[in-house]
Amino acid sequence: MIKVAIVGGTGYTGVELLRILSQHPQAQVEIITSRTEEGVSVVDMYPNLRGYYDDLKFSNPSAQELGTCDVVFFATPHGVAHGMAADILATGTRVIDLSADFRLEDIALWEKWYGQAHGAPQLMSQAVYGLPEVNRENIKGARLIAVPGCYPTAVQLGFLPLAEQGLLNGQHLIASCVSGVSGAGRGTKLGSLFCEATENVMAYAVNGHRHLPEIEQGLSRAAKKAMQVTFVPHLVPMIRGIHATLYTADIDQTIDVQQLFEQRYASEPFVDVLPAGMLPQTRSVKGSNMCRIAVQRPQNGSKVVILSAIDNLVKGASGQAVQNMNIMFALDEKLGLHAPALMP
Amino acid sequence: MIKVAIVGGTGYTGVELLRILSQHPQAQVEIITSRTEEGVSVVDMYPNLRGYYDDLKFSNPSAQELGTCDVVFFATPHGVAHGMAADILATGTRVIDLSADFRLEDIALWEKWYGQAHGAPQLMSQAVYGLPEVNRENIKGARLIAVPGCYPTAVQLGFLPLAEQGLLNGQHLIASCVSGVSGAGRGTKLGSLFCEATENVMAYAVNGHRHLPEIEQGLSRAAKKAMQVTFVPHLVPMIRGIHATLYTADIDQTIDVQQLFEQRYASEPFVDVLPAGMLPQTRSVKGSNMCRIAVQRPQNGSKVVILSAIDNLVKGASGQAVQNMNIMFALDEKLGLHAPALMP
Amino acid sequence: MIKVAIVGGTGYTGVELLRILSQHPQAQVEIITSRTEEGVSVVDMYPNLRGYYDDLKFSNPSAQELGTCDVVFFATPHGVAHGMAADILATGTRVIDLSADFRLEDIALWEKWYGQAHGAPQLMSQAVYGLPEVNRENIKGARLIAVPGCYPTAVQLGFLPLAEQGLLNGQHLIASCVSGVSGAGRGTKLGSLFCEATENVMAYAVNGHRHLPEIEQGLSRAAKKAMQVTFVPHLVPMIRGIHATLYTADIDQTIDVQQLFEQRYASEPFVDVLPAGMLPQTRSVKGSNMCRIAVQRPQNGSKVVILSAIDNLVKGASGQAVQNMNIMFALDEKLGLHAPALMP
Amino acid sequence: MIKVAIVGGTGYTGVELLRILSQHPQAQVEIITSRTEEGVSVVDMYPNLRGYYDDLKFSNPSAQELGTCDVVFFATPHGVAHGMAADILATGTRVIDLSADFRLEDIALWEKWYGQAHGAPQLMSQAVYGLPEVNRENIKGARLIAVPGCYPTAVQLGFLPLAEQGLLNGQHLIASCVSGVSGAGRGTKLGSLFCEATENVMAYAVNGHRHLPEIEQGLSRAAKKAMQVTFVPHLVPMIRGIHATLYTADIDQTIDVQQLFEQRYASEPFVDVLPAGMLPQTRSVKGSNMCRIAVQRPQNGSKVVILSAIDNLVKGASGQAVQNMNIMFALDEKLGLHAPALMP
Repeated sequence: MIKVAIVGGTGYTGVELLRILSQHPQAQVEIITSRTEEGVSVVDMYPNLRGYYDDLKFSNPSAQELGTCDVVFFATPHGVAHGMAADILATGTRVIDLSADFRLEDIALWEKWYGQAHGAPQLMSQAVYGLPEVNRENIKGARLIAVPGCYPTAVQLGFLPLAEQGLLNGQHLIASCVSGVSGAGRGTKLGSLFCEATENVMAYAVNGHRHLPEIEQGLSRAAKKAMQVTFVPHLVPMIRGIHATLYTADIDQTIDVQQLFEQRYASEPFVDVLPAGMLPQTRSVKGSNMCRIAVQRPQNGSKVVILSAIDNLVKGASGQAVQNMNIMFALDEKLGLHAPALMP
Repeated sequence: MIKVAIVGGTGYTGVELLRILSQHPQAQVEIITSRTEEGVSVVDMYPNLRGYYDDLKFSNPSAQELGTCDVVFFATPHGVAHGMAADILATGTRVIDLSADFRLEDIALWEKWYGQAHGAPQLMSQAVYGLPEVNRENIKGARLIAVPGCYPTAVQLGFLPLAEQGLLNGQHLIASCVSGVSGAGRGTKLGSLFCEATENVMAYAVNGHRHLPEIEQGLSRAAKKAMQVTFVPHLVPMIRGIHATLYTADIDQTIDVQQLFEQRYASEPFVDVLPAGMLPQTRSVKGSNMCRIAVQRPQNGSKVVILSAIDNLVKGASGQAVQNMNIMFALDEKLGLHAPALMP
Repeated sequence: MIKVAIVGGTGYTGVELLRILSQHPQAQVEIITSRTEEGVSVVDMYPNLRGYYDDLKFSNPSAQELGTCDVVFFATPHGVAHGMAADILATGTRVIDLSADFRLEDIALWEKWYGQAHGAPQLMSQAVYGLPEVNRENIKGARLIAVPGCYPTAVQLGFLPLAEQGLLNGQHLIASCVSGVSGAGRGTKLGSLFCEATENVMAYAVNGHRHLPEIEQGLSRAAKKAMQVTFVPHLVPMIRGIHATLYTADIDQTIDVQQLFEQRYASEPFVDVLPAGMLPQTRSVKGSNMCRIAVQRPQNGSKVVILSAIDNLVKGASGQAVQNMNIMFALDEKLGLHAPALMP
Repeated sequence: MIKVAIVGGTGYTGVELLRILSQHPQAQVEIITSRTEEGVSVVDMYPNLRGYYDDLKFSNPSAQELGTCDVVFFATPHGVAHGMAADILATGTRVIDLSADFRLEDIALWEKWYGQAHGAPQLMSQAVYGLPEVNRENIKGARLIAVPGCYPTAVQLGFLPLAEQGLLNGQHLIASCVSGVSGAGRGTKLGSLFCEATENVMAYAVNGHRHLPEIEQGLSRAAKKAMQVTFVPHLVPMIRGIHATLYTADIDQTIDVQQLFEQRYASEPFVDVLPAGMLPQTRSVKGSNMCRIAVQRPQNGSKVVILSAIDNLVKGASGQAVQNMNIMFALDEKLGLHAPALMP
């Protein structure tokens, strides 16, 4: 039984880790931290978990205490894990960071986009980018995982088969994405209010979103040359879900993109290439770790459009984190993640 | 491994049975029927199930073929099961009917409310009302189960502790209930359209809803005298959930109703009496088989208010049906039903 | 042209006043106040008003400056108006308070429910409860209006025809109400977040809501004897709307309640008694000042059920405030309020 | 007073015409047609209109009877107006068609996309494309107006300032659009059900949507050369609203696009170019005839992104139709359309 600690357990990715791990036969949550809610029962804050974690309380442990667990998940905003990870790693415990702290290998780029000094640049060389579909072998031996962002997961999985084959024109890549409101977290921001977010759609961060350098890093690695993306995120009135609509140009019309995608992901447990003609719906992945992808070539032209849907809290965060844990601990990659989406 | 057939698999309770049974370690869906979709793959209609039922197609089998399974679920509108149940039972196969066909023991009452002749009155004597919290012993040996309606489940579980103790004044019982739109099914009715149902609340069937006689039958049995209920259902803009607000009168102020409820349901796996002061939210049961109940005595008066929340598709239909199956086949009652609600 | 000031203009009732007054041919908003947003353009905060109030900025004026207007609306939380009203009234300017400060004539009762000392008890004798359907004559000459709360408006209009005729049994009145989330205001509370409020229904304040004494005061006045109400409010996932389901007992079966309601409200411009058999939908009043009411007698018994729907921000707040202004200034009562609900 | 007839009054654009015209001081709806609802009162179907159209019933008049009105609106699916328009025009009455029948001047193209023979090709030469921001002068003298589609309105208004200046590279235009569910109409389609559409986002018609040729026709006219667009529409869970995110390439970095847009639309009453940095929200136009537009140049590159928001039922249909009527009848263009959006 893997002993698990969760740092920052009051947010949506924290409670989602609890929900997923409640179904995991070989993991047990021992510690969940919150400075503001220390001493509060988890089930008083999350009544959906009554009967599952009745004895678990939020606590505020030291790195040493966290080190008594086998793995520590950081479900925190960026800027927390890079201050604590080194001490935990020093105890021999593995770290899976759901935040952005270890996602960009270029420290200067990270500091530019996140507007602060990086607290643990020395750890970057051992951080593994936790996208199993790309990095599975490295994840197996990793001690420190940077779980990809939600948008970057949906966007990279959509572009990857073309990028890896060198088929992408890096000057004409567009990622037009929408996200449910849970992506903004459980913080009490005006824009996250029901009356502000429902019956509304809006773009945001058009001039530059922090997930952009992460997306470009991943695609450039896959393509082995610089890829630029125009990335526009939008907020739509639903709780969970990211839908990425990806536009490419100059894809030779002789290439069978449907076949290319099917082959690329044939053995991936959590990427589902839909049959030709079927389009993904975010609700078909709600609560599940699946990424569903369709690839279309409108009017048989040279512009291929890829549509990619995930649940931002699962494959875009906590589910992918557990998938990484399973790989690191040499378990069946699907443990705890084997349930279909809730639909309707 | 229990071999399962589902009759009427295209509706919301049908797909919900598939979702739940995909998590059941001792049941296997062998047959799913639909006359209109015969030959269609289940996963083409319900892409959330891709990877779980890839080989299952809708079919249109005979009663004899259904009889090759161990149990047949009817996820049909009323009026279907009473025409087929006898032939299936004759093969030795058990029947669990999610529709209203076998819920009312008074055939004349059934015929009055449902506006048609009952097709199998001779089966009524062996039909068991499948509310495990009341009828567990009878369910164990049953061959034919009438799964309670969604409103009747929420309402009865809320009133039962008082009814059984003879504490209810049957002249002043009110059940003011709201339901999510999935309660209206997957039929393409005008009132179920997004643009008609969202940003709206309305009462319906104020003059008499078919679940009323079922509620009164259950409470009268429990109280051992006639109970009348004023029952008003409302439609609210959410997919899943029923919230029942139950009003009573003349409850002696010396009675500790909190304790009474806690004791009544202490050993029930799927009824959760909330601690004093906490109120149920439908989202805390979304996708789960739990019924959460709170009991309040406003301003310490003689009127006790009970609040009861379920997921209408789970504890109000398909989950309760599987709970019945587990009891009938002497399995752990929680098999396939052991997952927390999806929240947020 | 009536010169209008709005105190507390950043909340939902403030912006709703602006929206309504933009359509009013004889009123002009001169001042809108906000301490936190002083100097900010109204249209930068509320882009829907671009083109209507392009020159209006939030300011922080003195009572003297407010007194240069003809009328001051308070769109503030309770506890603000009672500190400022006296100084404004002293300038000769009329005050219309949308908050609770002047709604309860019993100061002790107010102080008990609102948990603070009342700041202007000497003004209570001149405050007029601004429910035009009851108090129109008094409103005409009033200098200080207490605009009714949202729930009290829906509930009182529903019970009034029976209360005024002495037909209500004050021991068995139940008001089971639901409200959209805008009723909780624009404050950034956890429970008002999209991800907390959508796909959810919950009761709140079951043990006692501040609108209860206001409801009981109004019904007791109408009935000329003490009326007690069991009042349970619920939160449902929509922006606007209150739906009240009102339960009575012991209404003599010879009384034609449909006719009684139609006669009572025959000349009211903003109460619409629906034809027998039609039930109100909150969306049919969305954005409008109308209250739609249906009255039902389930199965011809002695329990009459009334259903009443309003838009909480219009008839439940800002629209009713403007209706009061129109009456006070001897204008057509419908000025600025003559638009149908937005449906769908 | 302009006498108005509406053909096909039971759909969402029909009821929206009624709502808008109820506020129009110089128009009066005399006739509203429906074959299926003949004899039914409008207010029985649309209770929000009670008090506004109490005497209006659906009827099934001849072209001759329609000709007694001054203008006939077609709020019908495509394929109806082209069969009736000639007879109505022959009476001297003007026709404003909200459907697609007269939008494409290339009849063969129309027949290809709509899959049927065109019923009135002889009328195409006199049909005027009713986008006032482009065609105001032609609209003034028109007898037959083709009201633009909802997506084409949002997309064209967004691209126009660049197209007209010859700045668009017609090989790299992308329109990634989302629409609320009312765009699918009031028909009882499975995909329009609340439980299918809420908590979901999906693309549709990726391979080719009927609005594509209309968009390309409009942009090509403006640019005076062939423009190709990759157009992907998406369905999102809201009632009203279209949000278009438009991607261009190769826009010279010396061009001040903000200024270009502001100048282009400076005198347009229903196009609002937002100040630099503000992004449009669909809710800021909900129920209004306004199109709000922002223009952004991410990271000061050569790719300009335009964001355009309308209410699909107003500026995307019925409001634009009334705007056309106002122009045709030499009225103030804003009559009946002068109300801010309902927000929240």
